[in-house]
Amino acid sequence: MEPNKGLVSALFLFFLLHETIASPTPKPHIKPRPPPHRPCRHLTFYFHDIIFNGKNSKNATAAIVGSPPWGNRTILAGQSHFGNLVVFDDPITLDNNLHSAPVGRAQGFYIYDRKDIFTAWLGFSFVFNSTQHRGSINFAGADPLMNKTRDISVIGGTGDFFMTRGVATLETDAFEGEVYFRLRVDIKLYECW
Amino acid sequence: MEPNKGLVSALFLFFLLHETIASPTPKPHIKPRPPPHRPCRHLTFYFHDIIFNGKNSKNATAAIVGSPPWGNRTILAGQSHFGNLVVFDDPITLDNNLHSAPVGRAQGFYIYDRKDIFTAWLGFSFVFNSTQHRGSINFAGADPLMNKTRDISVIGGTGDFFMTRGVATLETDAFEGEVYFRLRVDIKLYECW
Amino acid sequence: MEPNKGLVSALFLFFLLHETIASPTPKPHIKPRPPPHRPCRHLTFYFHDIIFNGKNSKNATAAIVGSPPWGNRTILAGQSHFGNLVVFDDPITLDNNLHSAPVGRAQGFYIYDRKDIFTAWLGFSFVFNSTQHRGSINFAGADPLMNKTRDISVIGGTGDFFMTRGVATLETDAFEGEVYFRLRVDIKLYECW
Repeated sequence: MEPNKGLVSALFLFFLLHETIASPTPKPHIKPRPPPHRPCRHLTFYFHDIIFNGKNSKNATAAIVGSPPWGNRTILAGQSHFGNLVVFDDPITLDNNLHSAPVGRAQGFYIYDRKDIFTAWLGFSFVFNSTQHRGSINFAGADPLMNKTRDISVIGGTGDFFMTRGVATLETDAFEGEVYFRLRVDIKLYECW
Repeated sequence: MEPNKGLVSALFLFFLLHETIASPTPKPHIKPRPPPHRPCRHLTFYFHDIIFNGKNSKNATAAIVGSPPWGNRTILAGQSHFGNLVVFDDPITLDNNLHSAPVGRAQGFYIYDRKDIFTAWLGFSFVFNSTQHRGSINFAGADPLMNKTRDISVIGGTGDFFMTRGVATLETDAFEGEVYFRLRVDIKLYECW
Repeated sequence: MEPNKGLVSALFLFFLLHETIASPTPKPHIKPRPPPHRPCRHLTFYFHDIIFNGKNSKNATAAIVGSPPWGNRTILAGQSHFGNLVVFDDPITLDNNLHSAPVGRAQGFYIYDRKDIFTAWLGFSFVFNSTQHRGSINFAGADPLMNKTRDISVIGGTGDFFMTRGVATLETDAFEGEVYFRLRVDIKLYECW
């Protein structure tokens, strides 16, 4: 982001000064800031979460590892799963097909954090190690998961995503009971180094 | 932060060049950097945490969901609660009154992480959805909670707080035994988009 | 980082304009961006993690506080410890000697998040309170810990590390069974305020 801003202001000043030099009465006219923000990079992925339920150990990509006093670690707790901490290592795909070749792994955790409605707090990374992408994107934020879309923060990155920041829009693309869900993640990076 | 810096440097250059053009012997004079940092945005809130203790399920806004081998999930563990992971969904208010109308929710977790003194690691969000604020602010950092004030990082934001960064100063405003505490959060944002 | 960029672009423009004024046919020539990124600050530390195993409560600096349904909190679980959540308060030293005087504490958590190989997700802080450093550095990211080196994000800082961002390279410097490990952390900060 920085270099572009540098160029824009350099060009802007360049023309401002030309005008200034040509005109006898210079009017310092500050151009209004251009409208909102365009991502410097835009990526879309899907990831697939299969929670261990005591019977699916072969396929499960996630497990409950913390629960409230009234819960256990095999069945998501009542009261909107409040207090369940889930660890995951989910395949990332380019389309919405669980069986497509994964392009990376989504790894981290979510904690259900509200009693009266489904919301969670997320901390996780997308980890890539392919010819297309190498490196990681780190995410954190609140996921009010009953909303059609919700925004979390891209808080950093490494490798191909060195020092990046941005916003990721999550959308529940599908779910099956309490075992499987699929998220569509629309990553808009606004700081690209 | 960025646009202001752009304008400032544009104006600075504008005048520098005017001077340069007028004077026969240009003196490239670089203005010293202005003193420290002023937040581009400054907000103060309170939030209220009521930990479930087995008897207060109606009022509780938080629950212990992880504990060390020597602990359980109804009573905070000995040794400064080391190892207790607490999930919370706490009301945010503008003043220090628990019963004031909440303006948002503080959602996330803290983990007590030291045996000989009370310290915790925090990952949480302020989630707003009112006419005044819409969006979220994401926080992370160490909370040495016996200190009068302690600083954590604002690592990102969405909506009205798009891409923000800053520092939040926490202060324990009140506590009652091991069930209730109230934090005052002074949020100073230094990157505002 | 910002101020330097400001100065650089100011000087660049200053000379660009001088040239422009002197020459009859101005050629707006944008200098290419200088090669990669040099840290504005570079620090190296070690930290030492001793996991509680039921017998070492005196020395232990970490404890298992969450585990998958098939595990417990005294022994790291099978399947690459998938699902174990560990809280730590580890001494930071300047060299690789566990018994050197600590210069700070590494505090936070890691969660083993993969079944077929050792990987973890980290959220933690370096907390300093000495004459040399005062303040904190906050980290988050994926740690594929079988790799010789792996990068995580510096997502913020306070005090001497106010608003910093960067990348930290982790390297397992030593480990002893499942009880002790030592990480070398090479912190490269690219945003320094």
